Amino acid sequence: MAGSNSGLNSANSANSDFLSQVQAHVQANKGRYLEELKSFIRQPSISTIDVGMGEASQMLAAFMRRLGIRTTIYPTRRHPVVFGEIGPEDGAAPAGMRTLLVYGHYDVQPPEPLEKWVTPPFEPAVRDGKLYGRGTSDNKGQLFAHLKGLESYLAVTGAESGAAGAAARLPIKIKYLFEGEEETGSPNLRPFVLEHKELLRADAAIFSDSHYHESGRPSLILGLKGLLPLELRAKELASDQHSMKATVLPSAPWRLVTLLSTIKGEDGLVKIDGFYDTVRAPLPEEMEAADRIPVNDTEILKAHGAKHLLDNRFGRRYYHNMMFEPTFNISGLVSGYTGKGTKTVLPAEASVKIDIRLVPDMRPDDIHAKVVRHLEKHGYGDVEVARAELGLIPSRTPITNPYVEVARRAAADAWGDEPVIFPSTGGAGPNYIFTDDLGVPCIVIPFAASDQANHAPNESLVLDGFEKGIVASAMVIKYMSES
Amino acid sequence: MAGSNSGLNSANSANSDFLSQVQAHVQANKGRYLEELKSFIRQPSISTIDVGMGEASQMLAAFMRRLGIRTTIYPTRRHPVVFGEIGPEDGAAPAGMRTLLVYGHYDVQPPEPLEKWVTPPFEPAVRDGKLYGRGTSDNKGQLFAHLKGLESYLAVTGAESGAAGAAARLPIKIKYLFEGEEETGSPNLRPFVLEHKELLRADAAIFSDSHYHESGRPSLILGLKGLLPLELRAKELASDQHSMKATVLPSAPWRLVTLLSTIKGEDGLVKIDGFYDTVRAPLPEEMEAADRIPVNDTEILKAHGAKHLLDNRFGRRYYHNMMFEPTFNISGLVSGYTGKGTKTVLPAEASVKIDIRLVPDMRPDDIHAKVVRHLEKHGYGDVEVARAELGLIPSRTPITNPYVEVARRAAADAWGDEPVIFPSTGGAGPNYIFTDDLGVPCIVIPFAASDQANHAPNESLVLDGFEKGIVASAMVIKYMSES
Repeated sequence: MAGSNSGLNSANSANSDFLSQVQAHVQANKGRYLEELKSFIRQPSISTIDVGMGEASQMLAAFMRRLGIRTTIYPTRRHPVVFGEIGPEDGAAPAGMRTLLVYGHYDVQPPEPLEKWVTPPFEPAVRDGKLYGRGTSDNKGQLFAHLKGLESYLAVTGAESGAAGAAARLPIKIKYLFEGEEETGSPNLRPFVLEHKELLRADAAIFSDSHYHESGRPSLILGLKGLLPLELRAKELASDQHSMKATVLPSAPWRLVTLLSTIKGEDGLVKIDGFYDTVRAPLPEEMEAADRIPVNDTEILKAHGAKHLLDNRFGRRYYHNMMFEPTFNISGLVSGYTGKGTKTVLPAEASVKIDIRLVPDMRPDDIHAKVVRHLEKHGYGDVEVARAELGLIPSRTPITNPYVEVARRAAADAWGDEPVIFPSTGGAGPNYIFTDDLGVPCIVIPFAASDQANHAPNESLVLDGFEKGIVASAMVIKYMSES
Repeated sequence: MAGSNSGLNSANSANSDFLSQVQAHVQANKGRYLEELKSFIRQPSISTIDVGMGEASQMLAAFMRRLGIRTTIYPTRRHPVVFGEIGPEDGAAPAGMRTLLVYGHYDVQPPEPLEKWVTPPFEPAVRDGKLYGRGTSDNKGQLFAHLKGLESYLAVTGAESGAAGAAARLPIKIKYLFEGEEETGSPNLRPFVLEHKELLRADAAIFSDSHYHESGRPSLILGLKGLLPLELRAKELASDQHSMKATVLPSAPWRLVTLLSTIKGEDGLVKIDGFYDTVRAPLPEEMEAADRIPVNDTEILKAHGAKHLLDNRFGRRYYHNMMFEPTFNISGLVSGYTGKGTKTVLPAEASVKIDIRLVPDMRPDDIHAKVVRHLEKHGYGDVEVARAELGLIPSRTPITNPYVEVARRAAADAWGDEPVIFPSTGGAGPNYIFTDDLGVPCIVIPFAASDQANHAPNESLVLDGFEKGIVASAMVIKYMSES
């Protein structure tokens, strides 16, 4: 990404005029767009308890069809995938026409605890410039802004939306992939994608989730970490013993402590052979982008009640470490008696839950195997290594990818401010389905604010973000056609 | 202790005759003794819920007074101490007359779960040579054997028990100290002892608790470990965080692991400066006694489901390590999420419960201070060190003490077999009240079998042990007078 502000207020007058038209259209239609979103929010779609999923998928498909999107509802083993296309058929597209893949999810988290909601979760209500309701930010509202971005683009470029001919004026193809299982870990998304690689062929994938920067500036998120959750269990005795026997019988918790001390030292570096071997060095541009993200160590320490920040292989740079470094985190540790007071017991077992966050190009299977080899090498081959979940492969779209510039310009136009670009976040997610399985760059452009309270009571979507998101989505269509 | 069998069947014919008379007396009176014990068992005395304590102390005092013991019931902050003396007043004793202090406790554990008892806990019943009931072994029955030992001694040496003149024939003084709070941790025993040092002045203390050897051979237990329970708590953050932040924020569980790894290494030795400084080297006689205790490593491994036994500073000798080595045991370890499955959390806190078993001449306060200094030295000065309990001072009566030989001879006489002598056990207890506060040797001579089920349903006292205990107690009186 260039350091210039070329995207602000658009680089040329044609773009600037187009942006103004989109913005004017959104301002003129925002009332109707909001009412449509409210009707979508009113339809519960709680995937984990299977409430309203069929109805919500039908409603979403209807919204799409009204815009001229050729939409199919694909059943999966649980909740359907809603897929749609607009623009020429794949074979009939003009040479060089770009294809954009828009991802989102129409399922929501359960709304409980209900008593904490100021207004009911499925009765959307506007207060103080925010739309409150379950799914407003995560992800119905952010998903919906892309549909309204298409509608706005079509409206500004000619006939009314929904008209059959309008699609013909689109300068790119757009494919929409909306799943209904994100809040349950997307168990059927990857199988669907692998089975429909041709259908999903695209030049870039975009989606809107998470939130833009706390400062109010827009954000682009270009990478997510992978995840390998493991549990190590040391068992030394058939049952807990009176602790008087600690002189003569082996101790599971001490063994676990000793084992763990072979994995990480005082410097925090992971001592497993080859752990860092496949870590992709960040690009200079990515490191620069990380350094440009506003950060205030003092505030971070205060907010977390921490006494210091961690060093890492390359020093103590908050976002640098967060984005480009793997973790070997202890998320849970337990052995023996953990209640109040004293119980003099020699515990039979001790276990530790580990979550290892992976950066490109680490792979869960490879790191798992290296952990096992480490244990064998250090005499802990009998310690059980359980892997309850397959984990997630990390993904990162290089900041130098041309479609990052497309998204950057669109966001800068919509917000009137340069986006804060996150070459990665510390969070994990299945973006590798796009970057690795489909082989396309994947860019996250959030439309929700950082106080969205997703997964919590009183989830909200700031209306300003919703409107800017619609504008940004329309501008992505335009800039993608020019890329 | 000599390796000879000099105690078996007594060394001379006078002793042998006396033993035969005591045994004959016990056989002739065992029915009555048993009935008296049953009446004592029928009286509940559950200290922790304050059931029957006053009645039980009165009943015990009445048993004692009937034998000519001058008995006083001393109130404490909770349950009374029953104290009695027989023999001349302290000032009036002939020069060189020995004083024996017999300790015991008349309180019992709660009997729950009641449905697991074959016969009700406070309705004593004999089955298969055992008396079943709460407190039969722990400790009413074992305590009672000492009273019946006195009664038998008096009966064999002259007039009927209870007769005023009988006491005058006692060749030693005996003091009885029976508390009612042992099952609640003896909170008022030490204050009572420290307040009544003169009253309790004696040459040796003896009590019967625990159980004799699994082989059926009698046992002597000469030492108990001390105990220092500590809890170390590392706190790094104000609250748990998403584990994505593990790259940048400090981890309490990793800090605790690193801390613990500075305390104990792979070899199991405690690396705290001065930890072993005050460990009293076992006497050659004590090490020999430990080596004489029957031990079968294979059976121990099988019984505990262990793969190996621990080495210690002096090797892998089960009883040697158990008796003469301190522990630094992890009894509990907890941090973060310990439920089922995965939760990607960076825990704010981590804590470990430690119980350190001390051997003479380690002291809880000194070891506590050394732990704190160790943490400070290694950069963990901010880790909280909590000490919920004062702990226990270790005690060990040297095996070479002449009163050990008194008890050995008495036990060998009663059982017709050499006692297994435990210079110490791995268990902790307040014997230092005798050895350190009162400055007298303290010898435990158990009369209960290893299947006594104390603290459990169907607690029992084997009648053979009760009868041998009475004999042994009478023989202690005789041998003590000759020591």
